[in-house]
Amino acid sequence: MRLGRLNHIGVATPSIADSIRYYRDTMGAVRITEPFDLPEQGVKVCFVDTPDSTGEVGKGTQIELIEPYDESSPINNFLAKNPAGGQHHVCYEVEDIEQAREWFEGKSKRILGPTRIGAHGTPIFFLHPKDMMGQLTEIMETAPKDQGSGH
Amino acid sequence: MRLGRLNHIGVATPSIADSIRYYRDTMGAVRITEPFDLPEQGVKVCFVDTPDSTGEVGKGTQIELIEPYDESSPINNFLAKNPAGGQHHVCYEVEDIEQAREWFEGKSKRILGPTRIGAHGTPIFFLHPKDMMGQLTEIMETAPKDQGSGH
Repeated sequence: MRLGRLNHIGVATPSIADSIRYYRDTMGAVRITEPFDLPEQGVKVCFVDTPDSTGEVGKGTQIELIEPYDESSPINNFLAKNPAGGQHHVCYEVEDIEQAREWFEGKSKRILGPTRIGAHGTPIFFLHPKDMMGQLTEIMETAPKDQGSGH
Repeated sequence: MRLGRLNHIGVATPSIADSIRYYRDTMGAVRITEPFDLPEQGVKVCFVDTPDSTGEVGKGTQIELIEPYDESSPINNFLAKNPAGGQHHVCYEVEDIEQAREWFEGKSKRILGPTRIGAHGTPIFFLHPKDMMGQLTEIMETAPKDQGSGH
């Protein structure tokens, strides 16, 4: 397996509304997607678009803002320890999610649950931070429209 | 100020040598820079290059691996709390570091120390995580060779 694009970094927040104001007013973000619920993952989600090295906004690594969906959200523990929010996970793209799953299984890395559909609508899984040098790591299949075209 | 490129995410590690093996063998990184010392920041540093949306390695957001340089390193506390390492900071590019400093000062954000030369050889400063929604945030001036050219 070859290291893929850093699709996004996941940033936990107690309030997506506050985070949107922060990224817009303090950091100068010009494009932020509408928040939506992902109840099967226990989070509300939206994405802050960043520019890539050509300056094109939306081509760079995104910031995925995640807020707890309810009392059983898997990010409640993180926010209890980090009430202001903070960096929660990293997400790398792969071309084929099943091949990636076999790759990490072959290296005895603990995969957290089954492959499922993530916030971009493509299959994803998470790897245990203790097996990934302290980083909760998401692996996602590149969205078809992005594959190979650069768009 | 407009949100710039996410130049890198800083990942603290107890051992850059172990991290290089991890990124090469587990994550499939194909290009990792030679580690070097940055004693004035109290860290040893190297960069893992990632591809951008066109697949070109080195154009994507980098992973900056940082290991303590000595007993007084500013990342020793982080590693005491996170012995395996983990996500430590985010770094966004700006065109003009002095304008950016004034921008954040105008928003009453705490800047940690003077503007200094960072790991890419351009001026940088850090902002207090408590003022940045829980994220230690580095602001760096884009390297001249990168400005406007997309290279």
